[in-house]
Order: sequence, then C-alpha cells, then structure tokens
Amino acid sequence: MVAGSDDHGIYPVATGRAAETVQEHQHPQDLVLYAGWFCPFVHRAWITLEEKGIPYQYKEVNPYKDKEKHFLDINPKGLVPAIEYKGKSLYESLILCEFFEDAFPEHKPHILPEDSFDRAQVRLWTDHVAKQIVPAFIRTVMAQEPKEQEHHLEEFYRVLGTLAESVRGPYFLGEQFTLVDIALVPWVVRDFVLAENRGYSREAVGQKWKEYAKRLESRESVVRTQSDKKHYAEFYGQYLRNEAQGAMAKAIRAGRPI
Amino acid sequence: MVAGSDDHGIYPVATGRAAETVQEHQHPQDLVLYAGWFCPFVHRAWITLEEKGIPYQYKEVNPYKDKEKHFLDINPKGLVPAIEYKGKSLYESLILCEFFEDAFPEHKPHILPEDSFDRAQVRLWTDHVAKQIVPAFIRTVMAQEPKEQEHHLEEFYRVLGTLAESVRGPYFLGEQFTLVDIALVPWVVRDFVLAENRGYSREAVGQKWKEYAKRLESRESVVRTQSDKKHYAEFYGQYLRNEAQGAMAKAIRAGRPI
Ligand SMILES: N[C@@H](CCC(=O)N[C@@H](CS)C(=O)NCC(=O)O)C(=O)O
Ligand SMILES: N[C@@H](CCC(=O)N[C@@H](CS)C(=O)NCC(=O)O)C(=O)O
Repeated sequence: MVAGSDDHGIYPVATGRAAETVQEHQHPQDLVLYAGWFCPFVHRAWITLEEKGIPYQYKEVNPYKDKEKHFLDINPKGLVPAIEYKGKSLYESLILCEFFEDAFPEHKPHILPEDSFDRAQVRLWTDHVAKQIVPAFIRTVMAQEPKEQEHHLEEFYRVLGTLAESVRGPYFLGEQFTLVDIALVPWVVRDFVLAENRGYSREAVGQKWKEYAKRLESRESVVRTQSDKKHYAEFYGQYLRNEAQGAMAKAIRAGRPI
Repeated sequence: MVAGSDDHGIYPVATGRAAETVQEHQHPQDLVLYAGWFCPFVHRAWITLEEKGIPYQYKEVNPYKDKEKHFLDINPKGLVPAIEYKGKSLYESLILCEFFEDAFPEHKPHILPEDSFDRAQVRLWTDHVAKQIVPAFIRTVMAQEPKEQEHHLEEFYRVLGTLAESVRGPYFLGEQFTLVDIALVPWVVRDFVLAENRGYSREAVGQKWKEYAKRLESRESVVRTQSDKKHYAEFYGQYLRNEAQGAMAKAIRAGRPI
C-alpha cells in the first residue's frame, strides 16, 4: 500500500506494533477514539488509554481529507483526537487525558499525582511542553532557511534543557509516569525527523535528557502505539518542505496557538 | 499619589473596593499571594481565593520594576501572580486556581464541577478563553492601524460569540460559578478600555453576552477585588500606544503564547 494523492500523503493505516494494537481494538465499545495513527496529539490520548487499560474502539480517521459530517459533529474543529462516549463527544488531547483520569478512577495507573503541589507541577510542565516544546519542534521542522532552522533548533534545545533539568527520574516526576511524560513522548518518538533533517541530537541536550528520552520511548504503552518510522517520516515530508496545509501548520505560520 | 516614572506607569496600590480587601489581608499567613492589583491574571487567582475564603496574605509587587531576588526565587519568570505556600512556590494563574481547588478541598464553592464530562467542558472552554479570547483582547488593544484594529476586534467578537453561544446561564456551566467564569471575568471588567478606545460594545456581541458579562462583573468576589477604573485605564495606556515592554506585550508581538 502506498499513500495516494487523495490521502494527502498520509499512509492509510497504522503499521508495526500499532497495527496490532489497532487490531485488538475493533470491537464496539462505549468509548470510541477517533484517531490518526500518525498524529502526535492522538498519541497522547492513545497512550493514556493503553496505560489504564480502558476499553475503547479505535477508528482511523484522515482529518485532512474531506471531513465526514459525523466526525465534524463530534469535533467541530475537525481535528483528531476526538472521542465519543455515552452519547457525548470531546476533543483536545490534553483534555482527553485528564478526562480519562477523571472518568475512569478505578483504572490505574493514575497519570496525576495525589499531592496537590505535585499535581500543580505536572500541570505547569505539561504547559511548558504544550506552549514551548511542541511549537519549537514544529517550527524547526517547518523552517526552510539554514539560519532560521538553526535559530529554532537552538530554541528547541533551550526549552528541552529547561525541562530536562527538572526531571526527577526515572520519569519526570519520579517513579510515577504522569501527564508530563505523556504530553511529551510523542515528540520524542518523532525526534529522529529532526535528527535526520535538521542536525538535532539528543546528546546535544545532555546526558540526562538522552536517558530520560530513551526511558520514555521504551515505555510499553508507547511501544504498543508506535508505527513504522518510515511512515512517520513520510508524514513529516510536507512539513519539512513547509507545504503542509493543516490547522497546525497554519497556526504556526500565523503565530497562533495550536 | 500619582504613578512615578520608576513605577513604569503603574499606580502603586490597589484602590476602591480592592484596597479594602488588600487591607484585610495584610496579616502573615501560610499562603502568600504575590500580586499586582492591575493584573488580569492575578485577578483570576485573587477571585478564587476570595470565592473560597482561603486565608492569604496579599503582597503588592510591581513586576515591571527591577525584580527582587526573593520574587525571582518564587517565580523565575518574574511574573505575577505567584504564591508561596509552606516553603514551596507556584505560579501561572490558571494553575494556581486549580491548585487552590485541589489543596483546599474543604473550602467551598468548588470551581470545577463533580461530573467528569462537565469538568472536561470547563477545561475546554477555559482553554478557549486563554488561547483565543485573551490574545484577541490584547491584540485589539495593541493594534495601531484602524484596519488592524478592526480586524482584531472582529476576531474578538467572533471568539466571544462562540463562547456566549455555549453559556448555559446564569454562569457558563449553569448555577455553578466555575473556572471558565474566573478565567474570563478579568477581561470583562476591563472591556471598557476597548469600548472607549476601539469601538467595542457588548451589544455587538449579543444580548446573551451582555447579560452574562453583567452577571460576571457583579459577582461579589469580583467586586471585592476591583480597583478604580481610572487606574486600570492608566495601566492600559502604554498598551494602547503599543509601547508596553512586558513579557505579554513581547509575546503578542512575536506571535508566541502568553
Ligand atoms: N490541539 C489539538 C491539536 C490536534 C491536531 O492538530 N491534530 C491534527 C493531526 S496531528 C489534525 O487533526 N489536523 C487536521 C487539520 O488540520 O485539518 C490537540 O491537542 O488535540
Ligand atoms: N501566563 C501568566 C501571565 C502573567 C503575566 O503576564 N503577568 C504580568 C502582569 S499582568 C507580569 O507579571 N508581567 C511582568 C513582566 O512582563 O515582566 C499567568 O497566567 O499567570
């Protein structure tokens, strides 16, 4: 199978270990995840479901194609991830993760710590990932001029470094795998795109980052939801050429929140 | 008292009803709020403390002046609001509001609903306030060219309209005064700046918005933390002339998250 032009350059299905996980989640369930295997935001919600063993049905959506009415009813913004649950719908990756934590309290592990101060730290650093790290990643991918690429890569290193300093280890907050780790890991799994095209290396951030990144990508829930690298690479092609036309690319170009 | 040049144009103390509230919160407490009476982000945290009747000590900080070491130790970003609580420190207005909810569960009213789906809705719309409404407000204030002002005002109307449609009444979620209302009300209280300088009117958004806005600004906790309009107006002077040099103004100009 190759991605056809009407797929907007996106391979139609999950591959590798993710394909097996998709296969195991085809039966109808109360909770339906509208997902794109390629999407890092989907990845956050998907990892959370897998962590907690919440029953869900996986539905593959290519949100760049003509959006179906049913999908737009669920998310008027037309973005994945989105869910349907007992007649209601919800979207936005980080809000979905918190929803899974709230709505399925009996499903462990918890991705937010018990202690209120620690919870606040998790929210603070999740915010850092969302507002600083992810945009810096995307800007570095989309930059065309060498000077500009260098500038954004420097910023990416800087904001990763700030986070790395605060990692308690083995995970961000310590033993507990939390929302900070989940918010971040999809871009760790995809950082080879920057390594191969923009001169990024984990070493350049530092030893602590390198070890933490390795630990994140080795987490079982992350491994189980991962597709083949070559298909991720294919997806990033249009971003690397700054030809992407999705909501995220447009927001980045306009200096608007994603 | 007039604001001197070394105050960066900011009147040194709260006035009106807010001055009384500040006066009542001078005694040492476990929780210290580092605040600027003028700051809409501070306003969120302050309203939450007042809503819940949490004991706190109010400390006035002018974050635009040379930042004192103790303040930077508390918030390395040098922004208000920030808190000190039992030897720990925390900042970011929305994270502080959630922290107050988490750390003082016995202090009612709750600003997040019980139901997990409603909680997710509150988070979704709080995000809309933070990512869409607040930046559109500030961009409209800072715009100099009439065409540009009009463009940003249109966007401000549009994003207010989207929220207004979803107001259940009397407050955003219904009877409960929640984080959405708190996240938003500081800019409702300050919208006269846009009315007087940029042609904004609540009527233009619609009757539902007008009534909701009125209800928000009449809330006791909001009234009690409000300073004189003329001093808010004075504070916005440098934004209206696009001369402000704070982190927020710079972020808006650079198209970065605030
Ligand atoms: N802020 C959203 C972003 C989701 C997002 O941008 N998803 C992309 C795929 S990775 C999408 O659905 N794009 C469709 C489009 O841009 O039309 C979240 O965190 O869930
Ligand atoms: N995202 C922050 C924004 C806080 C903020 O921008 N505060 C302003 C005053 S309204 C400040 O402290 N500015 C000082 C500076 O820019 O140096 C929050 O939500 O708390």
